[in-house]
Amino acid sequence: MTERDITGRTRIYGILADPIHHVKTPEVMNALFARHGVDGVLVPFHVTADGLATLLSGLRRMENFGGFIATVPHKTAMLDLCDVAEPEARLIGAVNCVRREPGGSMTGAMLDGIGFVEGLRAAGYDPAERSVYLAGAGGAAKAIAFALAGAGIARIAIANRSRDKAEALGAALAAARPDLPVSVAGFSPEGEDLVINATSLGMRPDDPPPLDLGALQADQVVAEVIMDPERTPLLKAAAARGCRTQPGRPMLASQIELMARHMRAIS
Amino acid sequence: MTERDITGRTRIYGILADPIHHVKTPEVMNALFARHGVDGVLVPFHVTADGLATLLSGLRRMENFGGFIATVPHKTAMLDLCDVAEPEARLIGAVNCVRREPGGSMTGAMLDGIGFVEGLRAAGYDPAERSVYLAGAGGAAKAIAFALAGAGIARIAIANRSRDKAEALGAALAAARPDLPVSVAGFSPEGEDLVINATSLGMRPDDPPPLDLGALQADQVVAEVIMDPERTPLLKAAAARGCRTQPGRPMLASQIELMARHMRAIS
Repeated sequence: MTERDITGRTRIYGILADPIHHVKTPEVMNALFARHGVDGVLVPFHVTADGLATLLSGLRRMENFGGFIATVPHKTAMLDLCDVAEPEARLIGAVNCVRREPGGSMTGAMLDGIGFVEGLRAAGYDPAERSVYLAGAGGAAKAIAFALAGAGIARIAIANRSRDKAEALGAALAAARPDLPVSVAGFSPEGEDLVINATSLGMRPDDPPPLDLGALQADQVVAEVIMDPERTPLLKAAAARGCRTQPGRPMLASQIELMARHMRAIS
Repeated sequence: MTERDITGRTRIYGILADPIHHVKTPEVMNALFARHGVDGVLVPFHVTADGLATLLSGLRRMENFGGFIATVPHKTAMLDLCDVAEPEARLIGAVNCVRREPGGSMTGAMLDGIGFVEGLRAAGYDPAERSVYLAGAGGAAKAIAFALAGAGIARIAIANRSRDKAEALGAALAAARPDLPVSVAGFSPEGEDLVINATSLGMRPDDPPPLDLGALQADQVVAEVIMDPERTPLLKAAAARGCRTQPGRPMLASQIELMARHMRAIS
């Protein structure tokens, strides 16, 4: 998409965030559009929480608008603003990608967790039938937990500093998937096949570890949601102990494709 | 503006139209942005007349939105939707360019006529003190008449197929500029310095001429608002009679700069 390529026929896509300046989605999505020959462009829309509903009403009337990605702080609010939400989004209570239907109706999806699972699969690892240790019980953890449940894992153990949040996520998961064994775990990931950090611990150099690094075993797969730094202390420790590791960035690449597909920019 | 250049920091500008697919402004404005090193991108927003007010409310809440160009069929409706309109826009009763102020207030301007006058000046012709024959009394003619009045012409004669529209424009002009001699003219432009076609006659091969081509004289300057075809039958006839001619396209180039300046994309 060069300047000459944006014409009156180009479809518009957006990313809604506050703040906006740090988002990387325009570069990544526009590169994907270029690779697929899509006559579309994704542009940043900076909107605060109290302007979100009004902007959304306006975007319903933009006939050549294909949809948008919602990120911080809009994911939770978007669920109620959509006309239709996919089951995964309703379960998680958040939306991060919205398709504008002809006529202006908005269909929301939550692709954070599915992007994570697709990233694992793209790296050749299928989480089906595996046991999972999940560190974290916030938004990212919730999305990943539901996506893993949908991907057919054998069981999941959730660990969180405030235990009541882990219990709440476990209860929500058990309610949605009564046949999935769910438990609350402590600091050690011992004995589980797939070990996931879905907390923000590891972004800063002086963060404590999100789980007991000393308990990692060589037959475990260790996955990270943090994208920056690319090699977190957890991933370094896991690699040193002979574990297979999965960094956070492939999740983004997988998710961008899922988003483009949800917005029907690509098929 | 290449795909890599659209980032979270890029400011957004729009063109609002219905239909949208034929607009050329994205190409022209984005090329101007590139020449001036502006980190901005202009994209097409397709909106129908009954969606305009709602979209505008939404755009007020888009914090990184710099403004937009309004074209068919939105120019008249935009006047009342703006919070502030420049004097020229109020006189003409239409707005074709809107700046979004920080906080969301919208300031409208009407630059069609000023763009036409700037195009003449850029070609080395100053209409000050000249007598003008203006064919047409629609939106384009109105904008040009008021801009010429502001540029200090000596007098203006307005010709139109339906004479009452010419009289109405003449009366509006006389009310705004009591010292400007205004008259209603017939089919012949004889005796005026500057002859302008502001009708759409000449766009199609079988259109009748907008004025009496046989009355053109070598000392006249003949200007056209039609951009496509670039050389209309009027311009060809004028050139054959030794007149200096001014095609419609330079008006667009001048106007694009005025628009970029009104939206504060360039200074």
